Amino acid sequence: MADDKAKTDQCKTDIGTARKFRDEIPAIVEELASSCARHDCFDHVGPEPIPSREAIIDTVHMACRILYPGYFIRTRVDEVNVGYYFGQELTALFEALSEQIMLAIRHDCIRHNQVCTNCEERGQQAAIGFLSGMPKLRVLLATDIKAAYEGDPAAKSFDEIIFSYPGLFAVTVYRIAHQLHTSNIPLIPRIMTEYAHSRTGIDIHPGADIGESFFIDHGTGVVIGETTTIGKRVRIYQGVTLGALSLGREELESLRNKKRHPTIEDDAIIYSNATVLGGKTVIGARSVIGGNVWIIDSVPPDTELFLKKQELVLKDKNIK
Amino acid sequence: MADDKAKTDQCKTDIGTARKFRDEIPAIVEELASSCARHDCFDHVGPEPIPSREAIIDTVHMACRILYPGYFIRTRVDEVNVGYYFGQELTALFEALSEQIMLAIRHDCIRHNQVCTNCEERGQQAAIGFLSGMPKLRVLLATDIKAAYEGDPAAKSFDEIIFSYPGLFAVTVYRIAHQLHTSNIPLIPRIMTEYAHSRTGIDIHPGADIGESFFIDHGTGVVIGETTTIGKRVRIYQGVTLGALSLGREELESLRNKKRHPTIEDDAIIYSNATVLGGKTVIGARSVIGGNVWIIDSVPPDTELFLKKQELVLKDKNIK
Amino acid sequence: MADDKAKTDQCKTDIGTARKFRDEIPAIVEELASSCARHDCFDHVGPEPIPSREAIIDTVHMACRILYPGYFIRTRVDEVNVGYYFGQELTALFEALSEQIMLAIRHDCIRHNQVCTNCEERGQQAAIGFLSGMPKLRVLLATDIKAAYEGDPAAKSFDEIIFSYPGLFAVTVYRIAHQLHTSNIPLIPRIMTEYAHSRTGIDIHPGADIGESFFIDHGTGVVIGETTTIGKRVRIYQGVTLGALSLGREELESLRNKKRHPTIEDDAIIYSNATVLGGKTVIGARSVIGGNVWIIDSVPPDTELFLKKQELVLKDKNIK
Amino acid sequence: MADDKAKTDQCKTDIGTARKFRDEIPAIVEELASSCARHDCFDHVGPEPIPSREAIIDTVHMACRILYPGYFIRTRVDEVNVGYYFGQELTALFEALSEQIMLAIRHDCIRHNQVCTNCEERGQQAAIGFLSGMPKLRVLLATDIKAAYEGDPAAKSFDEIIFSYPGLFAVTVYRIAHQLHTSNIPLIPRIMTEYAHSRTGIDIHPGADIGESFFIDHGTGVVIGETTTIGKRVRIYQGVTLGALSLGREELESLRNKKRHPTIEDDAIIYSNATVLGGKTVIGARSVIGGNVWIIDSVPPDTELFLKKQELVLKDKNIK
Amino acid sequence: MADDKAKTDQCKTDIGTARKFRDEIPAIVEELASSCARHDCFDHVGPEPIPSREAIIDTVHMACRILYPGYFIRTRVDEVNVGYYFGQELTALFEALSEQIMLAIRHDCIRHNQVCTNCEERGQQAAIGFLSGMPKLRVLLATDIKAAYEGDPAAKSFDEIIFSYPGLFAVTVYRIAHQLHTSNIPLIPRIMTEYAHSRTGIDIHPGADIGESFFIDHGTGVVIGETTTIGKRVRIYQGVTLGALSLGREELESLRNKKRHPTIEDDAIIYSNATVLGGKTVIGARSVIGGNVWIIDSVPPDTELFLKKQELVLKDKNIK
Amino acid sequence: MADDKAKTDQCKTDIGTARKFRDEIPAIVEELASSCARHDCFDHVGPEPIPSREAIIDTVHMACRILYPGYFIRTRVDEVNVGYYFGQELTALFEALSEQIMLAIRHDCIRHNQVCTNCEERGQQAAIGFLSGMPKLRVLLATDIKAAYEGDPAAKSFDEIIFSYPGLFAVTVYRIAHQLHTSNIPLIPRIMTEYAHSRTGIDIHPGADIGESFFIDHGTGVVIGETTTIGKRVRIYQGVTLGALSLGREELESLRNKKRHPTIEDDAIIYSNATVLGGKTVIGARSVIGGNVWIIDSVPPDTELFLKKQELVLKDKNIK
Repeated sequence: MADDKAKTDQCKTDIGTARKFRDEIPAIVEELASSCARHDCFDHVGPEPIPSREAIIDTVHMACRILYPGYFIRTRVDEVNVGYYFGQELTALFEALSEQIMLAIRHDCIRHNQVCTNCEERGQQAAIGFLSGMPKLRVLLATDIKAAYEGDPAAKSFDEIIFSYPGLFAVTVYRIAHQLHTSNIPLIPRIMTEYAHSRTGIDIHPGADIGESFFIDHGTGVVIGETTTIGKRVRIYQGVTLGALSLGREELESLRNKKRHPTIEDDAIIYSNATVLGGKTVIGARSVIGGNVWIIDSVPPDTELFLKKQELVLKDKNIK
Repeated sequence: MADDKAKTDQCKTDIGTARKFRDEIPAIVEELASSCARHDCFDHVGPEPIPSREAIIDTVHMACRILYPGYFIRTRVDEVNVGYYFGQELTALFEALSEQIMLAIRHDCIRHNQVCTNCEERGQQAAIGFLSGMPKLRVLLATDIKAAYEGDPAAKSFDEIIFSYPGLFAVTVYRIAHQLHTSNIPLIPRIMTEYAHSRTGIDIHPGADIGESFFIDHGTGVVIGETTTIGKRVRIYQGVTLGALSLGREELESLRNKKRHPTIEDDAIIYSNATVLGGKTVIGARSVIGGNVWIIDSVPPDTELFLKKQELVLKDKNIK
Repeated sequence: MADDKAKTDQCKTDIGTARKFRDEIPAIVEELASSCARHDCFDHVGPEPIPSREAIIDTVHMACRILYPGYFIRTRVDEVNVGYYFGQELTALFEALSEQIMLAIRHDCIRHNQVCTNCEERGQQAAIGFLSGMPKLRVLLATDIKAAYEGDPAAKSFDEIIFSYPGLFAVTVYRIAHQLHTSNIPLIPRIMTEYAHSRTGIDIHPGADIGESFFIDHGTGVVIGETTTIGKRVRIYQGVTLGALSLGREELESLRNKKRHPTIEDDAIIYSNATVLGGKTVIGARSVIGGNVWIIDSVPPDTELFLKKQELVLKDKNIK
Repeated sequence: MADDKAKTDQCKTDIGTARKFRDEIPAIVEELASSCARHDCFDHVGPEPIPSREAIIDTVHMACRILYPGYFIRTRVDEVNVGYYFGQELTALFEALSEQIMLAIRHDCIRHNQVCTNCEERGQQAAIGFLSGMPKLRVLLATDIKAAYEGDPAAKSFDEIIFSYPGLFAVTVYRIAHQLHTSNIPLIPRIMTEYAHSRTGIDIHPGADIGESFFIDHGTGVVIGETTTIGKRVRIYQGVTLGALSLGREELESLRNKKRHPTIEDDAIIYSNATVLGGKTVIGARSVIGGNVWIIDSVPPDTELFLKKQELVLKDKNIK
Repeated sequence: MADDKAKTDQCKTDIGTARKFRDEIPAIVEELASSCARHDCFDHVGPEPIPSREAIIDTVHMACRILYPGYFIRTRVDEVNVGYYFGQELTALFEALSEQIMLAIRHDCIRHNQVCTNCEERGQQAAIGFLSGMPKLRVLLATDIKAAYEGDPAAKSFDEIIFSYPGLFAVTVYRIAHQLHTSNIPLIPRIMTEYAHSRTGIDIHPGADIGESFFIDHGTGVVIGETTTIGKRVRIYQGVTLGALSLGREELESLRNKKRHPTIEDDAIIYSNATVLGGKTVIGARSVIGGNVWIIDSVPPDTELFLKKQELVLKDKNIK
Repeated sequence: MADDKAKTDQCKTDIGTARKFRDEIPAIVEELASSCARHDCFDHVGPEPIPSREAIIDTVHMACRILYPGYFIRTRVDEVNVGYYFGQELTALFEALSEQIMLAIRHDCIRHNQVCTNCEERGQQAAIGFLSGMPKLRVLLATDIKAAYEGDPAAKSFDEIIFSYPGLFAVTVYRIAHQLHTSNIPLIPRIMTEYAHSRTGIDIHPGADIGESFFIDHGTGVVIGETTTIGKRVRIYQGVTLGALSLGREELESLRNKKRHPTIEDDAIIYSNATVLGGKTVIGARSVIGGNVWIIDSVPPDTELFLKKQELVLKDKNIK
């Protein structure tokens, strides 16, 4: 009985404590809401809708279902319905992509206080332009798949590569994003490649220019910068950075939109954790760059370049 | 007809084989269930509920929707409803977070065989404490966003950074988790930062102490240990480790809760794949650490420290 | 009125522009559909269903719920229902796994133009075989959890490790996939480990052979190749590569299914970003490999091997 | 072995039969697609979007969450967050409703070949008009709830009525739809009341005019026609029809938009399965209509009208 | 160009009109929020959670999955896993049901300003009590299924009845709700039967007392009142009302909890649209009541009672 | 402090009471599991899968999306993608329907202990047969839509009818189910029409034979029995029963598969709540049956038949 009393009281207390703390919420709301009018916080409080990260990621998967028909769906595609399949998928991608591009263009206009004309039509035009490029994209990606098969003795089949190789996924998303980047679509390409980055650890800027038959093995930690140029049949491994030279803060701003990242010529191979830096650095055709090297000067064609054998300090643990 | 017969028989056979294998299930169930009472297996078989990883990840996203209003929702926030928006989001976060904190505290008490008192109220108090800190968190994160914009010539806008930079996401989650870690909430902060780790490849321990205007570029492979101290306006790149010195097994245990990771002073820059180790190692203010270096001793302020040009072994492939 | 007229016209124009672009879709459909009959594109257009990446990932999570009972569900497991819990989860896993294995086997047969017999029964047999091995898997994984606790002074509890350590997740998925790989199941093991790779940045090939009490700390960027052998109580850190030696293109093909990756003996420790390459390279028992080293020759047992202190080039920033 | 052979063959046969039938699909597609251009089939094939039944049903539930705050959500509403709750729910309803109204208006314009001007603004205006009426709607519905409590001795509490009485749900949806119908919104009101009809078996046309404190008990089979007028405090039971007189086909068309259904004055009660027909039929105030009667003439006020006791034919079953 | 200008302006106008209307929202919010403190509106604004209609409907389906094992799930139940299946389903039902009962009891206590003690334990006790009764419920429902099969010549199999007969669904939900009603659980039983009412048009009050082998054919429009008593092997058809006599408003209140509805003895049959009213009305054993009759007096056992053949007024349409 | 103690103890008590009740679960599981082997309970415990009610309902909606293209989807169908739309929808319907038919046939075979041959092929054949009939079904349903528009002065447009008229939905589902019933598919047609019954209160047996231009207005409570025959251009209202004559239990069984329900000839109209019973009863062409009548004998063509004006008992309420 006394026990019951204790419980009842506690019940009231529980509701009471919750209430005590909830009463603090309005003041926090007030403070947060007022912060949105200030300049020391970022927010997107305004009447116009913005592109949706989630919707853009959806378009990436829609594009993948078209580029690799039959792989990423549970229903069956055969000769009978392959045309219907492409038709419905392309129509859906057209609608989703043109809306996001329109939102991105409008958002950019508003940000720059520009007059935003024909944004809907421009979105549709860019979307259909992207769709028109998909057949060629399929041919290009087929070269990447073959390069992966030839470059990795652990690969058992093409299917395994399409299903599970993160390098192929990252390159596929890069090629999608690069095509949109080439059409000057703002914001969307970068959201796409960062999505791939988040899934694979491979960070390829949509502005990079990469030739056919490109293969990234394992891939985690790869960084390929905005103004990198990569030729045909290049192969790189995990942890490779194709980056800009280190710079002081004051120099950074002057470099926006300049060539800051290296050039890799046809048939070059760059092994794991190698770092290649600088806009004037060229890795010549057919050269092989060994793992963990640090390169800030050009390497001529047909060269093999490896780290000199390190002097290592051995300690006999038993002695220590 | 014979063909039909074959099919019918096969139908029976199929059901038969499935049954044959299914009959082995109960013995496996028995074996697994009995293993839960032994000491060589881990399980969570008991009457009390435990924190939910999934629910904790939800709170991370709820907090992000509050910290960056308007960015991660499909509906529109404007001056008319921004107050309602914060109100509903904060209320929801209060409920979800106080429940998970309560579960984490109770779980910890039970694990240590301690009397668990007022766990509900403590959960609510910690949750409202976290909410109260959110306006300041917004101001702090605004410095991180500006640092990213200034530090990366490829950044086109603040929006691009908020939408897509993994470094900002990892730092945001770290700052959320760090605030809870400071309030001695068990388990939850680590689950949060490991979620960010899994999405970005950036592993910041919630115990680290990081100043304003912090920027991690690309970020994959970054490790920042539990007792690291980082000043203001520091910039680091992918693959950087701020870690503990290597130790034999016997020494490890004695080091729990001691300063084992380095100190990075204001305005320092650390380039990709550099490794800085040890609790007594200090990178002085305004110093610049080049890529791929390995540092176990302190570096004075205003210093630039780069790897000596490596001797590389070139081989002419045509000769080989 | 004139304003209204403008709006109406625009309405028509909008529909008109959308239509103008939509009219281009059929030609693209045609082009894509025809590409499926050519040899320069990859697709999976055919009557037979293929394994589903999504369904395989589901089986990974089902297995995790069984291996770590009570951790990854929101409902409660206690002594009363632990048997029912295992029973239902095992039955569900049996059904899901046997179907995916059957699809993988059949897919492999068709790919090799082999007669595909008893594929359903083979799928069921492999699935029940996997289930039978789960009690032992639990014991093995318990050694990994203890190794993580002992190896990381930041670990506060076993629960924290199970909930949030990416290294444990990657090793768990590897051990699941390795068991299926040992039973010669095609495609599925690799999809599983690539899923873990995508979530953790840790890429362990299912063919690797890894002993008990294995711990990977932080882990992002770790690569463990197909023919690697790892002993008991080994500990490795982020960015470690256990890989194959660099090879020219022509040599690659001859190496499929040969020992190409190193052997790590009992109780060895390999610190961050070390690279160990080659099928004949052995890291001896109890040896410690320091960070960032590059090893292509064997290291005897009981050895500590660190990078020689680098000569660093300091520049006084004030002078520059 | 022979058994295996049979199975393999069957496998092929199965794929073969599926293919055989699938091959018939394109001809059916062709036939269906061509039917869309003919006049003997209905379809909605055109460039402009139409209102979505699903989205309209969503707005009904959004409105119910606002009209009965705290009843149909799992999260908690208290004095602290009730304002935020209304704010977010109203904003969301405004967006969803104005879009559907805009689509309905535009659809109606296109159907009538009218110039469609300001359709967005008209949608927003109608939506905000509806929202403005919601406080009054709440007061009106409160009279209906009280009428249900007073009219049904089985009612245990107001909560039970709000949670579970189909009559209240149907009346709530009718009052929502009636307000939109009064604003001349096409299509949407009818979709709303048919949704309530489908859930409750109560079919109230949105055009009917119904006073306060209205109660329908049980309700299945109730039909209340488009031009019905119902006073205050009226109570009706299951199976009651307030309908139009029977008419030959030729007369129907001339009656669109005329008063065809009866008038029920204040405080009348109509018991189960009674049928009251005709635009000139008036049930006087305070009258009581017994079950199963059939009325096509007016009944004066303060009258009780019951079926004469039926002569029933009894048969002794034992004799039969 | 002028055209472009028009479009831009319209874009601004559109955002402008939306904003104009959105600005009216705060006043409506204010009005609604203030109405929650008044007495002319209903709301559930307070700190304590209430039962969830949605969660209660979930428990109905959970119970159905247990009562008809194997019918309403897509996964397979066989002898191997039937025990696990029941185990997991019962555990889940125990948790869900005890929570909802606890909330309903607490809600009732608060509504009556009573001290609410042991509400959690009472919820658990009532839930386990319900579970204990489920084996008997299965036996009872089996008599209902057989009665349906024997009573309907259109029934092809027992499976068809379990899968698709609305009468069986309504009776099943009634029997579940009746058991909870007998244990004095507030609110929940009525929400359950109203859910069945909404799906089937059959409204059985949970307080009714119904014997074994009960069959309702078609069922739409059936009403069975709170104090109805029904014997064994009774069969009724669509539109049958077993109701209370008509009453003036003043008499209603005095009748709460009194016997107001009829008694139907064993083996009686009541055909479609018959109305039987009054607490003293008894339909004797084995009697048959014809369609559309209206009964307010008792009918002796072994009687057949049909409507006298109606005098119908025929009109020759050709003459008219 | 004492207060804290009480809370801690209660915490333990709560877990304790839950445990006390949970401990009763295994005995209930045992009892339920053992009941599955007895004859007084129904279950579906066996190795073979059964048709899924949920999956069958999905096929109904898939068929509706094909029969009324553009109405029940949120995406847009226009001339460009209408062919793709039909193609994908038909392919998906083929797969889903052939699987469910196969399961229904196999289930029926097993139930009758028959050899089940070619069940997959028979399922595919029946499914493609159904698809082939869909163009004709569209033409037939168009006559029903026009009949609704002509029969209801409240109908504002064809779209309103397709979107919201329950009569059209019930007739659509009946026509789908009737086609499958004609092909002797077991179980599925009845599940389909009962789904429509549950949504509309209109119960049409799939075995009924109904001509073109059929219109049911309002519809709740309509019952159309298995052997009913209905001509062209017939119109019926809510609560109409076209049923079998009342029968003693012994006669029922002999009537399975005999003509037990009435025949309604071309152009007849039957008003609300009329009951027409018996296999020999014929309502002649062009006849009109008034509301609430009870007919067990045939009515000649061109007849109007209304209830004789009832003698009603009026009571002056003021006197009473």
